[in-house]
Amino acid sequence: MHRVVIIGSGFGGLFAAKALKHTDVDITIIAKTNTHLFQPLLYQVATGVLSEGEIAPPTREILRRQKNVRVLLGLVEDIDLAGRAVKWRFHNNHFETPYDTLIVAAGAGQSYFGNDHFRTFAPGMKSIDDALELRARILKAFEVAEFTVDPDERRRLLTFAVVGAGPTGVEMAGQIRELASATLRNEFRSFDPSDARVVLIDGADQVLPPFGPKLGKKTQDTLEKLGVEVQLGAIVTDLDDDGLTFRRKDGTSERIEASCKVWAAGVQGSELGKTLAEQSGAELDRSGRVVVTDRLTLPAHPEVFVVGDMAAVPGVPGVAQGAIQGARYAAKAIQARVSGGGEPGPFAYKDKGSMATISKFAAVTQIGKLQLTGFVAWLAWLFLHLLYIAGFKQRITTLLSWFITFVTNGRAQRVVTNQQMVARLALERLGAGSSGKLIHGEELAEE
Amino acid sequence: MHRVVIIGSGFGGLFAAKALKHTDVDITIIAKTNTHLFQPLLYQVATGVLSEGEIAPPTREILRRQKNVRVLLGLVEDIDLAGRAVKWRFHNNHFETPYDTLIVAAGAGQSYFGNDHFRTFAPGMKSIDDALELRARILKAFEVAEFTVDPDERRRLLTFAVVGAGPTGVEMAGQIRELASATLRNEFRSFDPSDARVVLIDGADQVLPPFGPKLGKKTQDTLEKLGVEVQLGAIVTDLDDDGLTFRRKDGTSERIEASCKVWAAGVQGSELGKTLAEQSGAELDRSGRVVVTDRLTLPAHPEVFVVGDMAAVPGVPGVAQGAIQGARYAAKAIQARVSGGGEPGPFAYKDKGSMATISKFAAVTQIGKLQLTGFVAWLAWLFLHLLYIAGFKQRITTLLSWFITFVTNGRAQRVVTNQQMVARLALERLGAGSSGKLIHGEELAEE
Repeated sequence: MHRVVIIGSGFGGLFAAKALKHTDVDITIIAKTNTHLFQPLLYQVATGVLSEGEIAPPTREILRRQKNVRVLLGLVEDIDLAGRAVKWRFHNNHFETPYDTLIVAAGAGQSYFGNDHFRTFAPGMKSIDDALELRARILKAFEVAEFTVDPDERRRLLTFAVVGAGPTGVEMAGQIRELASATLRNEFRSFDPSDARVVLIDGADQVLPPFGPKLGKKTQDTLEKLGVEVQLGAIVTDLDDDGLTFRRKDGTSERIEASCKVWAAGVQGSELGKTLAEQSGAELDRSGRVVVTDRLTLPAHPEVFVVGDMAAVPGVPGVAQGAIQGARYAAKAIQARVSGGGEPGPFAYKDKGSMATISKFAAVTQIGKLQLTGFVAWLAWLFLHLLYIAGFKQRITTLLSWFITFVTNGRAQRVVTNQQMVARLALERLGAGSSGKLIHGEELAEE
Repeated sequence: MHRVVIIGSGFGGLFAAKALKHTDVDITIIAKTNTHLFQPLLYQVATGVLSEGEIAPPTREILRRQKNVRVLLGLVEDIDLAGRAVKWRFHNNHFETPYDTLIVAAGAGQSYFGNDHFRTFAPGMKSIDDALELRARILKAFEVAEFTVDPDERRRLLTFAVVGAGPTGVEMAGQIRELASATLRNEFRSFDPSDARVVLIDGADQVLPPFGPKLGKKTQDTLEKLGVEVQLGAIVTDLDDDGLTFRRKDGTSERIEASCKVWAAGVQGSELGKTLAEQSGAELDRSGRVVVTDRLTLPAHPEVFVVGDMAAVPGVPGVAQGAIQGARYAAKAIQARVSGGGEPGPFAYKDKGSMATISKFAAVTQIGKLQLTGFVAWLAWLFLHLLYIAGFKQRITTLLSWFITFVTNGRAQRVVTNQQMVARLALERLGAGSSGKLIHGEELAEE
């Protein structure tokens, strides 16, 4: 039986497996999480609307009826292209899984543009761990402000800085403002939570650059009406526990004292890209993504596909659709090879549009030349997300959680665990603080 | 204004505050979690049915409209009875809050009966942290079994030992069996998850001792039909990473190799009991609970009430009703003192019955002389829990999560975070492993 190994359980990995459901192959998924993450809703976990389970169903549950798939929890450490084997481990148990065809869909992490020491103080928005860590930091900032007497320190606690004005940054900034002004209303006695300051910072000249200037301006207006401060053409030059400093294009700098920082600024392709590049001669772009052929394979390795956020394909954005379409293309090629049919032509990406939610009942949507804003765009967002999550068991509770949040402004998920109270400190004592590797990095489980 | 300080946000602390809603007092709650935990449903978080937010709404959200209450997140370190002040801290910020009346409702932790080194390997079931840690351990055991070839090691991974056959232990054992045999069906390729072995161990001669022999036998029968092994008259003498050893009354010992252990065996009153006892001359019982007067106060300190799990009151069990009734009694006494009315007579506990769920559609209930079992008891359980949670915003999502689990056997919450993959190791490296203090103890946030 032809053995297909898939690395990763995100949009690329999951949809590749699903597309091979009726193909006579033996599929193994190796992923470092036990769940499939619906990343576009991660910001709702970070701000207490949804529980982690609602956006991350177990991969093996989704695929339980697909008998030609086996799911393994493990961290891939190396790929042997010549020997056609994937080397992975769980804790200190090491394994080697051979393949006939390999689909590498290991995704991307957050890039700090060479400033990796920012990571400890400004988690990214790439994993459930990131979202839960940010949820705890946001909620703790309000808790601590309640008993903080010094007005400067209280101001710092109630200042939230979001770096990066792409969809994730826009969504986080909007949600933190809504959390502060609506959800937390009446809950504090020492201050008015709606005074919380939220600053959205980006080096570009507009928010949501890929949406074009018109939607960017609309989005910025909506954000500013919500009370979000928008700083454009602003590069973060320093970031620490107390706050951050950014430099404007005119050379002036500004310091913002902010207890809670979110980093949603750049992506960095999975480390696995390096081993693929070294062995195959493929190039990496400046985000560390693998430059693949127009068949989404490595040069001289037609049996190795690279799809999703870790592949650099001209014209394909780093969104779910990019990964899904790449995965389906790879599956189609594999099916053709196994059944002896004709292989598909070069990969062609079909732009299905992009969208971002700004706040309750307000979004921006771009589908081809059609640009929507406000409530209509929000309805489009709701409809498309319902359509997508309809494939998952969590659809009903997710819908209900949304309904409750939209109607009551309540957020069901506001637990800060005791572990979250101490974890950062514990990890810093271990010396992990500077790289943040233990919490945010590629580490599955060191031993 | 008369200042009432309440320590703890569990059933005792929350209900004391609520009962003082219309009393002309100034209330401060100091608690080490930001939420009110509905502890009777903790086992459902540990086994993936409910999210943590569904059983732990923020204390300040519940009380947001009660203007005479202020909620503070902090760890109480000491109480100065002579100076009438509570000393507490958050990280390394120290505070002192004066009181006219104090209600101490700091609850209880798990007791390991002098074997505190068991804690690292067998978390208790007292906090959200405990439940999330156990959820991760249970789910990880199945994940690791999928790629474990050695049959003995796989057997060990799929063996779950629950120590303590009170309601929590019975519920955990039943839920792990249901998770294995129903929820996980079809999800694994190397083994049948319904082969998982669940062992329930207790030193007593029956399960659920307070329910009497008849209900105990019924419960045991139901558990055994579910596939749970019940070991009675069995004292755990050794427990480590690999498994545990218990000794029977006839002197024979048995070793069980089990990757995942749950400790639901004993309670230990909050450490704050010691400082109260030292200063007031009150006694502590062998579980470290404070022996209070028949007015629920410290001897010679009528201004200090001790209620809930940390108080030893003859005839009052360590359940939610014990804490709620004690809290309401204290509130009534305070109201009388503030308004100059007559104080209530000695505290009298009204037994409203007890119940435990064994599995889906099966429970045991005892209300006075009425003993119910099976489906009828389960309906009573459902009705009473719905009635209670009706006061909370999460009631609709909770009900829906139950409905989905009852109908589809699915469990919505099965995320294992990356932090959970590494945390134990990280904490062990810190030397916290032996006491488990950082995860499970009283530590809010050391610095």
